[in-house]
Amino acid sequence: MIQIGSQPMKKILIPPSTELFFGSLQLFEKLPHLKPIVIADEALEHLYAKPLCARWGADLILIPNGEKAKTRQIKEKLEDALLEKGCGKDTVLIAVGGGSTTDLVGFTASTYLRGVPLILVPTTLVAMVDASIGGKTAIDTPHGKNLIGTFYPPKYILADTDTLKTLPEKEWENGFAEILKMGLVSDPSILEMDPASPQTILKAIEAKILITQKDPFDQSLRRILNFGHTIGHALEIASNYEISHGEAVAIGSMTESFLSHLLGHLNQEDFLKIEEIYSSRFDLSLPKTYMRPALLKALLFDKKKELGLVRFVSLQKIGKAHPFNNSYCNPAPPKELEAALDWMESTYG
Amino acid sequence: MIQIGSQPMKKILIPPSTELFFGSLQLFEKLPHLKPIVIADEALEHLYAKPLCARWGADLILIPNGEKAKTRQIKEKLEDALLEKGCGKDTVLIAVGGGSTTDLVGFTASTYLRGVPLILVPTTLVAMVDASIGGKTAIDTPHGKNLIGTFYPPKYILADTDTLKTLPEKEWENGFAEILKMGLVSDPSILEMDPASPQTILKAIEAKILITQKDPFDQSLRRILNFGHTIGHALEIASNYEISHGEAVAIGSMTESFLSHLLGHLNQEDFLKIEEIYSSRFDLSLPKTYMRPALLKALLFDKKKELGLVRFVSLQKIGKAHPFNNSYCNPAPPKELEAALDWMESTYG
Repeated sequence: MIQIGSQPMKKILIPPSTELFFGSLQLFEKLPHLKPIVIADEALEHLYAKPLCARWGADLILIPNGEKAKTRQIKEKLEDALLEKGCGKDTVLIAVGGGSTTDLVGFTASTYLRGVPLILVPTTLVAMVDASIGGKTAIDTPHGKNLIGTFYPPKYILADTDTLKTLPEKEWENGFAEILKMGLVSDPSILEMDPASPQTILKAIEAKILITQKDPFDQSLRRILNFGHTIGHALEIASNYEISHGEAVAIGSMTESFLSHLLGHLNQEDFLKIEEIYSSRFDLSLPKTYMRPALLKALLFDKKKELGLVRFVSLQKIGKAHPFNNSYCNPAPPKELEAALDWMESTYG
Repeated sequence: MIQIGSQPMKKILIPPSTELFFGSLQLFEKLPHLKPIVIADEALEHLYAKPLCARWGADLILIPNGEKAKTRQIKEKLEDALLEKGCGKDTVLIAVGGGSTTDLVGFTASTYLRGVPLILVPTTLVAMVDASIGGKTAIDTPHGKNLIGTFYPPKYILADTDTLKTLPEKEWENGFAEILKMGLVSDPSILEMDPASPQTILKAIEAKILITQKDPFDQSLRRILNFGHTIGHALEIASNYEISHGEAVAIGSMTESFLSHLLGHLNQEDFLKIEEIYSSRFDLSLPKTYMRPALLKALLFDKKKELGLVRFVSLQKIGKAHPFNNSYCNPAPPKELEAALDWMESTYG
């Protein structure tokens, strides 16, 4: 479906200490003089993991594919494997995979011996534009997604566009959901561009760097990146991750746009324009197992919840989130929340 | 044995963001407008935990006494308890107990929802002068002590000297081992003072603040605080924590002093002076279960190990560690290490 040609390499410095390389990287020749351990999604064993280990003289540890890797048990196994290998503070952990891999390995690197150097090699669009940027790491618990984690900047991010050439269509959709979100909350020009072009991908990366630099610890502005994710995450949890992250975030973005409109923040014209963009881009439907009580329960464990009310990022117009006392976390009153869920069920049910 | 009178309160700012209160604090009346959760050593349930919860309007979670609390399983239970209570980012975790409690609760606070505010209320001498200062948090794994953790500064440290009035003698010994260590590597005047006086305790705290401020992430100077701990930690692990931390560190300090002398860093006069101080202060003996192979195995998992050699902090003279390329981690060649263990076994066996 999508063609990524050979791209010139671009280097971006992310203060205080990260260097991002974007483009056709020939997956990097040189490495710092540390003991490298590649930790890769098992689905990438032959495509990237083993060739990279051979090139870098690295040991390999494989972890489960996708969200299943983001558990306490897998983190513990990974730590024990590193301890068994006698890995000291001179170890560098290299995460090769999608956002789940970079989240898990990032969290592990941040707590192993109180922190060892980290290199991220995102191989999916969503990991490239979202998960690998901004220093967030996390695992899930049965209570919800990303509940335990740290802020931990990697030393290098190697965003090799060549890895996108083999990406399945579903993975492109996951990335588009995050790229469009970036357009809605921050840079509307993204909405006019082909989301699959390297220029758009780089623009989304740069937009995220800008926002996370202004608010690295997610105390104010950075929260706009959670647009679509209050309902999106709850959909994932309630469906036991049967729904993809991209589809969940896309449905979440649409439903939260509707809620923004309902609360009088977003005008109808903008809402209809958003609806048009999303319906032309995605073919969305709720998971077969969807039940509203499970969704409401999952919403109650959202990290943004305060004073008993579900919070969400509301849109003020296309390209701008509603500041709400600079917290960017608007309360969702139960009545309007239920009405938005009614709309969601009738639209995607 | 030891009398602590009523002490005037002293406030010390620890950049970037910690305020330490030292003295008779009447265990603090006011608290920030957050949701406070007291997490306390179960041994302190009636003495401090319940009264403090009543005063602060806090919920209480009890954790096991001592080092047993520093496991992945207890951290997981603690996180699940917080999630069950619906604790959001407006939660503040208040650790009440010794160094194990502050280490565990600190680590939990640093990763819960990627970080919630933390208040430390150290109630032992060792927690007051050592564990609560400098932002290190950790849990143990079967491979060794403090292998998984973070650097995470608390918001407040409440070092209430009144809590020391009920401290058992063994706990004073644990604290003395760290206070004397501080004298050996940094401030020899501490060695001339009564280690049980509030002035000495405060001096040890201030010495540790100074060192950790110069090197917060333990990359150089801060490592001098590990003096006595390479062998000390290994003794604890090899004895399955049958030996107290203080006794292990005291034996470790003496054995590493001997090794420093053996390697030609420390002269005989200083070594004999150290021996005199320690033998007048402690009545040391190796644990009954001591076996050298277990100790050597534990030494191999020390965090400071690099390039296959056990590393330790060597003394150059009383009050000064041997810099060794500014890493302060001297290799312990196998022959000299074995000779030092011979000395340790014949002295304390």
